[in-house]
Amino acid sequence: MRQAQTIVGVSTRGRTLSDISSTVREWVRGQGLTNGLLTLFIRHTSASLLIQENADPDVRADLERFFARLVPDGDPLFEHTTEGPDDMPAHVRCALTQTQLAVPLIDGALALGTWQGIYVYEHRARGARRDVVLHLLGE
Amino acid sequence: MRQAQTIVGVSTRGRTLSDISSTVREWVRGQGLTNGLLTLFIRHTSASLLIQENADPDVRADLERFFARLVPDGDPLFEHTTEGPDDMPAHVRCALTQTQLAVPLIDGALALGTWQGIYVYEHRARGARRDVVLHLLGE
Amino acid sequence: MRQAQTIVGVSTRGRTLSDISSTVREWVRGQGLTNGLLTLFIRHTSASLLIQENADPDVRADLERFFARLVPDGDPLFEHTTEGPDDMPAHVRCALTQTQLAVPLIDGALALGTWQGIYVYEHRARGARRDVVLHLLGE
Repeated sequence: MRQAQTIVGVSTRGRTLSDISSTVREWVRGQGLTNGLLTLFIRHTSASLLIQENADPDVRADLERFFARLVPDGDPLFEHTTEGPDDMPAHVRCALTQTQLAVPLIDGALALGTWQGIYVYEHRARGARRDVVLHLLGE
Repeated sequence: MRQAQTIVGVSTRGRTLSDISSTVREWVRGQGLTNGLLTLFIRHTSASLLIQENADPDVRADLERFFARLVPDGDPLFEHTTEGPDDMPAHVRCALTQTQLAVPLIDGALALGTWQGIYVYEHRARGARRDVVLHLLGE
Repeated sequence: MRQAQTIVGVSTRGRTLSDISSTVREWVRGQGLTNGLLTLFIRHTSASLLIQENADPDVRADLERFFARLVPDGDPLFEHTTEGPDDMPAHVRCALTQTQLAVPLIDGALALGTWQGIYVYEHRARGARRDVVLHLLGE
């Protein structure tokens, strides 16, 4: 049993879901493990990780519309507006989604379903450089 | 330290929470490990995993009513309606809940609290056959 | 490769986010591992775990206001009111947040970003004694 780690940098462009599945798959493949567990961790509180439908781009657009309505920018409810009207909504969206994910590795491949992709979900209007830690464990 | 993996199939019947705690416990017991970590991963984007209260069935019914109100079927906000009015709501519900869970194993038993059960939460109106990967690591 | 486990008790005082980062960091440091993975698991269905912004206390207050509005106490939608008007809302808040977290360990330190803290989020109005299991794996 052994482990491997790396940090993947992702440059996001506003409120979008960036598909990191192929980057992740490539790194996992390079570690030469057959069975195990991959953990992903995003080092931010205004961008999150999500496993979502990977076939129809409308799904990602609908998801963003849903979150924009559920957690409206500039909501008078929020006192924390230091970095603008999208600051606190970004933290709330992170609480409602995931900071970390885990995906088993079976027979050399991630156990993602056919329609599952791994995404970085940016919650700030401007986008940013985001770091995702990958931790792989197995044999 | 060693690991074990399996895939558990769950047939869901519409929007319900299916308790998989005993199935999971039984498989874990069969691996003969004392301390470690169990990870569960569901290979779908319209059904999710949840740890919830296991005593009163009203909790699961209330939870379903809450999600049905929060993410209404047929919401005109959604463009992705390929598989019907419950298609996109199912993806949103997955984003708001979990695709994977982790539960430590202590002294041969899962460290679940007294009132915690492990559930597959089906988000499609019709139900489906769902695959849950179990990954156990320990000694 | 080896593992270590412990249970941390946290006494919460009503609906607040209790920062457990330093307790967790101290225990991790004591295990003497360099690289690996920490998993946290809360053994309850009315308190959850969250990684959130750790600089401005307004963020936690705003988060609580958001959840109080999204999942109102005493909502007539809920039938499960055994322990009062905050009973079912606590379960819903748990479904919307996390029961478990995972944080990689890199070069002897948890890979948390600068602004990330680890919190126990109490969802019952009165607070309670909460158990969080820590599982660390690495070398």
